[in-house]
Amino acid sequence: MNPPVAGAYERSARTRLRRLSERGTYDRAAIHAILDEGLVAHVGLNTDHGPRVVPMMYAREGDVLYLHGAPANDLLKTAAGGVEVSVAVTIVDGLVLARSAFHHSMNYRSVVAYGFAADIANPLQKRHALDMLVKKITPDRAADVRPPSDVELRRTRLLGLPLIEVSAKVRSGGPVDDEADLTRAVWAGVVPLHVIATDPVADD
Amino acid sequence: MNPPVAGAYERSARTRLRRLSERGTYDRAAIHAILDEGLVAHVGLNTDHGPRVVPMMYAREGDVLYLHGAPANDLLKTAAGGVEVSVAVTIVDGLVLARSAFHHSMNYRSVVAYGFAADIANPLQKRHALDMLVKKITPDRAADVRPPSDVELRRTRLLGLPLIEVSAKVRSGGPVDDEADLTRAVWAGVVPLHVIATDPVADD
Repeated sequence: MNPPVAGAYERSARTRLRRLSERGTYDRAAIHAILDEGLVAHVGLNTDHGPRVVPMMYAREGDVLYLHGAPANDLLKTAAGGVEVSVAVTIVDGLVLARSAFHHSMNYRSVVAYGFAADIANPLQKRHALDMLVKKITPDRAADVRPPSDVELRRTRLLGLPLIEVSAKVRSGGPVDDEADLTRAVWAGVVPLHVIATDPVADD
Repeated sequence: MNPPVAGAYERSARTRLRRLSERGTYDRAAIHAILDEGLVAHVGLNTDHGPRVVPMMYAREGDVLYLHGAPANDLLKTAAGGVEVSVAVTIVDGLVLARSAFHHSMNYRSVVAYGFAADIANPLQKRHALDMLVKKITPDRAADVRPPSDVELRRTRLLGLPLIEVSAKVRSGGPVDDEADLTRAVWAGVVPLHVIATDPVADD
């Protein structure tokens, strides 16, 4: 399932950035790092009733992105039926406050992938993919929790999207203001944003 | 531009939840609160070359979602040409660690909207929409920064998506484990996640 890729994914007409191309990267390690840090994938496809984008739990392993949902999840059902998907994972790193309205921005790292996601039907493979999902949420506990029963496996849909046509886009650093605005008496810079975990709340 | 809505948006075939319907809400205030707290919208549509989902800055005002990009941004150009979009905004509130692999989950609040986004061409309206974008990033500074020049306005594309067909989905609370798993010797509960800002970094 893992296509052979060297250090970088190949560019395609869809993944090649036409604007601000310095923000684009096809580096495999960089793309994997974003996918491993992100928490939610936004999965989109074209249904008979128009476009549909929904947030979804996911996990990456090698060059495969596992997408997870209930068997009744209509988007995954459609995707499993051979309809192409686009998947985006975005991490916001900061608010970029410029001296001019126009140059306000955000620092972020995002990955966008395209392709066909296949149903993972084989129970062994499905168990493994679900394990990857649990490991993404909580790396150290996967061995301690009760593994899925056959019934639970049937009540789970897992799709594998091979990472072939994929790219990342990254903005970092301070605002890029016009020369004439640099003396303006307004604070400019970056407000870094982070996702943090607070004290765990034990279940009753 | 603001369609008259009472306290809740109308359900449609696309926004009505078929599974876990208790997680769905059409409440206008609840949906607006999620949109106002979220930072990035994932905008998807069907192009001539397949589905495409990209992250985008946005702002909400009343029942309109402003989407922002460069005029060359192909997705916004396509949307402005009368191609329907689906927009999702998701906030992750926590990791839900269950006693069984199957019941692992995330707490989240998400909004999904469908509709046609129109180009905001009128310069006054465009200035106003850009102002809303800046206010979303930094509520108190919009009056202090240099307003956009005519050239900058032309170099910005702003679309307005009327919020008509829209719903939210919310998961909160602890894991929902099977009765038989409750005595299992493994920690179960929620790890709350928050987006926090750290010390601002001033531009040189």
